Amino acid sequence: MNQDYIKADPWSIIEEGFDKEQVKSSESLFSLGNGAMGQRANFEEQYSGATFQGSYIAGVYYPDKTRVGWWKNGYPEYFAKVLNAPNWIGIDVFVNAEPLDLNTCTSVSNFRRELNMKEGWYKRSFNATMPNNVKVGVEVIRFLSIDLDEIGAIQYNLQVLNADAEVILLPYLDSGITNEDSNWDDKFWNTTKIVSEGERAFIQSHTMKTNFAVCTFMQTEVFVNGNKAQIKPTLKKDEQSVGNSYIIEVKKNQQLSLIKYGGYTVDRNHPKDQLQAVANLVLDEASENRFEGLLKKQKDSWAKIWEMSDIAIEGDVKAQQGIRFNIFHLNQTYLGKDSRLNIGPKGFTGEKYGGSTYWDTEAYCLPFYMATKNQEVAWSLLEYRYNHLEKAIENAHKLGFINGAALYPMVTMNGEECHNEWEITFEEIHRNGAISFAIYNYHRFTGDYSYIPKMGLEVLIGVARFWQQRFNFSEDKQQYVMLGVTGPNEYENNVNNNWYTNYLAKWCIDYTLEQLKVVKSKYPKDYNRIVDKTSLASAETENWAKVANNIYFPYSEKHEIFLQQDGFLDKILIRVKDLDKSQRPINQKWSWDRILRSPYIKQADVLQGFYFFEDHFGRDVLEKHFDFYEPFTVHESSLSPCVHSIQAAKLGRMEQAYKFYLRTSRLDLDDYNKEVEEGLHITSMAGTWMSIVEGFGGMRVLNDELHFTPQIPEQWESYTFKINFRNQIITVKVSKKEASFEITGEKALMIKVNDKPVELIPRKAVQA
Amino acid sequence: MNQDYIKADPWSIIEEGFDKEQVKSSESLFSLGNGAMGQRANFEEQYSGATFQGSYIAGVYYPDKTRVGWWKNGYPEYFAKVLNAPNWIGIDVFVNAEPLDLNTCTSVSNFRRELNMKEGWYKRSFNATMPNNVKVGVEVIRFLSIDLDEIGAIQYNLQVLNADAEVILLPYLDSGITNEDSNWDDKFWNTTKIVSEGERAFIQSHTMKTNFAVCTFMQTEVFVNGNKAQIKPTLKKDEQSVGNSYIIEVKKNQQLSLIKYGGYTVDRNHPKDQLQAVANLVLDEASENRFEGLLKKQKDSWAKIWEMSDIAIEGDVKAQQGIRFNIFHLNQTYLGKDSRLNIGPKGFTGEKYGGSTYWDTEAYCLPFYMATKNQEVAWSLLEYRYNHLEKAIENAHKLGFINGAALYPMVTMNGEECHNEWEITFEEIHRNGAISFAIYNYHRFTGDYSYIPKMGLEVLIGVARFWQQRFNFSEDKQQYVMLGVTGPNEYENNVNNNWYTNYLAKWCIDYTLEQLKVVKSKYPKDYNRIVDKTSLASAETENWAKVANNIYFPYSEKHEIFLQQDGFLDKILIRVKDLDKSQRPINQKWSWDRILRSPYIKQADVLQGFYFFEDHFGRDVLEKHFDFYEPFTVHESSLSPCVHSIQAAKLGRMEQAYKFYLRTSRLDLDDYNKEVEEGLHITSMAGTWMSIVEGFGGMRVLNDELHFTPQIPEQWESYTFKINFRNQIITVKVSKKEASFEITGEKALMIKVNDKPVELIPRKAVQA
Repeated sequence: MNQDYIKADPWSIIEEGFDKEQVKSSESLFSLGNGAMGQRANFEEQYSGATFQGSYIAGVYYPDKTRVGWWKNGYPEYFAKVLNAPNWIGIDVFVNAEPLDLNTCTSVSNFRRELNMKEGWYKRSFNATMPNNVKVGVEVIRFLSIDLDEIGAIQYNLQVLNADAEVILLPYLDSGITNEDSNWDDKFWNTTKIVSEGERAFIQSHTMKTNFAVCTFMQTEVFVNGNKAQIKPTLKKDEQSVGNSYIIEVKKNQQLSLIKYGGYTVDRNHPKDQLQAVANLVLDEASENRFEGLLKKQKDSWAKIWEMSDIAIEGDVKAQQGIRFNIFHLNQTYLGKDSRLNIGPKGFTGEKYGGSTYWDTEAYCLPFYMATKNQEVAWSLLEYRYNHLEKAIENAHKLGFINGAALYPMVTMNGEECHNEWEITFEEIHRNGAISFAIYNYHRFTGDYSYIPKMGLEVLIGVARFWQQRFNFSEDKQQYVMLGVTGPNEYENNVNNNWYTNYLAKWCIDYTLEQLKVVKSKYPKDYNRIVDKTSLASAETENWAKVANNIYFPYSEKHEIFLQQDGFLDKILIRVKDLDKSQRPINQKWSWDRILRSPYIKQADVLQGFYFFEDHFGRDVLEKHFDFYEPFTVHESSLSPCVHSIQAAKLGRMEQAYKFYLRTSRLDLDDYNKEVEEGLHITSMAGTWMSIVEGFGGMRVLNDELHFTPQIPEQWESYTFKINFRNQIITVKVSKKEASFEITGEKALMIKVNDKPVELIPRKAVQA
Repeated sequence: MNQDYIKADPWSIIEEGFDKEQVKSSESLFSLGNGAMGQRANFEEQYSGATFQGSYIAGVYYPDKTRVGWWKNGYPEYFAKVLNAPNWIGIDVFVNAEPLDLNTCTSVSNFRRELNMKEGWYKRSFNATMPNNVKVGVEVIRFLSIDLDEIGAIQYNLQVLNADAEVILLPYLDSGITNEDSNWDDKFWNTTKIVSEGERAFIQSHTMKTNFAVCTFMQTEVFVNGNKAQIKPTLKKDEQSVGNSYIIEVKKNQQLSLIKYGGYTVDRNHPKDQLQAVANLVLDEASENRFEGLLKKQKDSWAKIWEMSDIAIEGDVKAQQGIRFNIFHLNQTYLGKDSRLNIGPKGFTGEKYGGSTYWDTEAYCLPFYMATKNQEVAWSLLEYRYNHLEKAIENAHKLGFINGAALYPMVTMNGEECHNEWEITFEEIHRNGAISFAIYNYHRFTGDYSYIPKMGLEVLIGVARFWQQRFNFSEDKQQYVMLGVTGPNEYENNVNNNWYTNYLAKWCIDYTLEQLKVVKSKYPKDYNRIVDKTSLASAETENWAKVANNIYFPYSEKHEIFLQQDGFLDKILIRVKDLDKSQRPINQKWSWDRILRSPYIKQADVLQGFYFFEDHFGRDVLEKHFDFYEPFTVHESSLSPCVHSIQAAKLGRMEQAYKFYLRTSRLDLDDYNKEVEEGLHITSMAGTWMSIVEGFGGMRVLNDELHFTPQIPEQWESYTFKINFRNQIITVKVSKKEASFEITGEKALMIKVNDKPVELIPRKAVQA
């Protein structure tokens, strides 16, 4: 954990001073994205020190052959990788023929990075003395346009501070890149065509195997003291790269500026043979706007995003910075414009975890997007899974399930399973339930039922079929049991009767049976279409009910708790606080078998069930389970603290809730796990948002009604957030003294605050 | 299964007719070994068809970097591979400049292979028409000397059948070889020096990383019609190979013979700088003996081996061939001359399973070597583990165990763990118990206690310490439980309270406590030395006893059986015979999770415990367990049928016992599992021997007394085997009518036959 490295600031991420050891971490933290592409904060000019180069295009992946020890039936053939894409940001700089490289400069001063989250741009500035004793001052601003999401812009300003000099600026495109996270050192890209047209250039390339065609493009211009320089660049071109080399004689302190527009057009969005033509149109539009115009639009776009999604915290700048960093990166990663896309655990900030979609999306991200965007965005996330239903059925079939049973993959890019540890791929099947739960959650929150008859019911049926087949009747127990699963707590593998999975599975079946009735009576046409398509017979649903009504749940009479799984009480139940600190984190200090035999919980498991189904249990039951399980929880998953923060708040333990909040919100900024250089933990960022809104704010939807039980951490003066509840925007401000609520729109809205009804009249703040 | 491919013959393995599809399988079946080196039955002349080239040197391995999906703490860095060694058998043949290559010949007739097990040689002969229409007749005899175990000899006879011709014979050495089973395409060998001296040649090379220095050598001579040809060969040499090229003008039907001696000298056995000098001495000795002399010695050596280890079966040639094939390969693999060596699952017949030592050695191979060799051989096998004790302690320490607890590796070459599936490496810990059991078994059979005070007790202590730490007290059960293990049935992973492991662990502790008492009273000096060395205190052994006396064993009151593990009865208990045949073998047809959830048993698990500890349970208890578990056993491990054969025989179910016997004895010959081309199943071959001696013969040692309960399969007229029982050789012949027993030596011996005492007087056959 490094708490001094990033300066506290309410709206910006700021690094001051050049530390080569931090370059890779900063490349992650200052990453840019616009939902369609993204990139790590790599330097434009060459850098010979330790760096992790990364540019990514949403939806463009490579099916890297999986690498496992011993093959097992049902393993996927490949592990989809988010690909390092051709580099368009590069600008080589030479002063008096010496390359500018911060790793070789004899001194670097005033080095500063700022990621301005409010306006959506990234600035880097420094003074440096080069090995040839030339001193330069550099300031670079870069952003990826939210509006024109195929383009980004760079303004690279340079002054020679101690002499007149010959400067060469060489902006380039390069498709000769590699992936760090490659299993077999395969070549992932093939370059087919390189074109230069004046100050524009284009590289046509395609991915191997998946054959995504991408045109990487740029346009460059040079200005001296603000005036366009009349220099014709020299073309530099080889088999994988193309550059415009500008040779400029500059006077001491003259301001040299290079404007570079660049980006990608992709055949996911345009006809393959039009990619260069479209790129030209995009560049035309960027040129018309000019850098300043694009930047102005960028600020406007981010203002709109913040207008709805910001959470303002008074009195705690680190907490403020943390939540905005989380909200900013969530919006950089996914904007909901394209239902073929989803939210990768590392977003556009790194390669790790390959593939884009985990159960994180349904379990953690959906609530954020439902509450801070228009309904269409959440719909897109649900539709993504609907579109993968056939693949999920195939996947289940590979594992021996029949009759349209669906098992969604643990990790995917295109609906196929990409993960290959048997204990996860084959057994961590609770993910399937999160997908049904998201359908329920969408309806609960938005009030929009239409997704279910249109698409959702088919998903529910596939999932229910899977669960019914996955349970088996135990003659011994005379109940249905579920053997050989891995729950959300991945520090247990291949256990029997994981309570969370059993409970969720039962709920999925019950919920599906209910929705079948609703759709049958209210949407008979859809009902008939779906029953026909899925060949669903009443004998089958009766069988579902038979299973769901007689499921075994491990329970301890002595402790009055549901057991995480069979045999949990056989473990040595030493609490985490009684463990020697030198033993933590256990995933780095202990062998895997020791972890498996221990009672230690990586992330909420039974408690995840209590989070999803809070209304099924009384407060005292929650308290008993929280008090039993949290002491054994090591929170070594980024997804763990948020759920515990919400539940601690629910139990009125605000100090504990606040501790969990800080851990989740500043996980990457403070680098708790010493791994931020690999990229950011994007999906858990949505958990941070939940910690405030559902945790401190106590927001729930019960029986179509919005509830709040506002509380505030000691350390804060106030916090404010907005919720889009069924197309009305509610602003909630909680201070130590009171909570106030205000809605937009035309209709009044009844909400409940601390279980008391409160009527909200549009544009009238109500204190409660 | 291919039952017609190998001709039935009591003493030889015979293949007739050339089938390119069978080349790789035959390369396995006709493999040669002499305990110190071995080789697949690759052709001497070049072959462009599908082939799996393999030459192996005992104890020479390569630590190939492991390849896993996701790393886990405690995983080994490398996976030791038995290396494909430099090739010394190669003889290129050209007739009128055309290479002889059976893959390109226009016709091949009279192709025949014979592996003469009685005499220890391998012969291949054929007639072939080459693409240039030259017809040749070839006969090759090859063997690896048992006496001079650094050398082998080849006599390559060739006639041109339809014309005079120019023949080139080019015997060579080649160190430019690769391993099929390489994780990272690393280069495994480095060639440092190539020397040619007249008709001798030497390649000095060493393995990468492990740096084993090997001198591969040869000497060649050519004869025409039996007379040494006065031809000086031309030297052919490149960076990795060296050859002697003989150009001979032969007349039609003239007999051309090439004698080639070749082999390895290794710095495991000689000073590194003496390897070529030693090779020269070895070649001198071979030359003096000449081919015929060496072959004569070979026949004598094998006669001696068979004298003691043969099992003769009358009336069933396939059963006869099967058991001899098994005994032959066991002796080719391990002769007990070198306690640094052990018995790899594939011996010298393939690369699969890398590493040389599994628990197979102690559980399956030891009884064979104890009974058919001098005691020193079994001692060597035990000493091997004693020499690895420090490494086993380190291995346990890596996993979090302390205070000298020892965990022997699942797979090893040098004492370090080489296997890297967590569910096996970390959890299949019952292997540790097999090592203690072998110590007991050695004493039980040989009557020699001296190993225990000298070496064994330290091993027993390390293992007992491991078990005591591996159990944990369950507050819930108020007993000690063992969580997270994999039993011998690898179709279950990470289960709790595997009965076999719990029982074996308890036995290990109890046995160690007893031996501590014995050594204390009878070998006080050793006792003091060991207690001192291991810092063993009485508080510790009291703690062992406390654990061992209160261990939980899963048991079903309803079925009156011990349960394989917790929760076994929750499975869907459909018997194997009621499974659709299309679903078998399940390891090829089912996904891994389906296998894990099923009740199907790969190899004896609870029943393995009943095999080891038969005398702890009554016959009726065995029967109950056999009847419960065998119907769920798919026998998809080569180690499964033998134990079941022994137990079926014990229960008087001879028909079933015979079926199991056939399955184990002809597993490779009939290629039950369609994988013989990868190599043979060496360790399970010892199980075949047990099936006859312990199964049909009913041999047991109880209270220092040898017992037999002879039975005979319907299909046989008689069978005869010998047992070295405490340095007296007992010949047992069982026919349908009677059993007869005869001993060598000077002393009379009391044995029991069908529980009745029988006195054996030397050299007097007794019928009983």
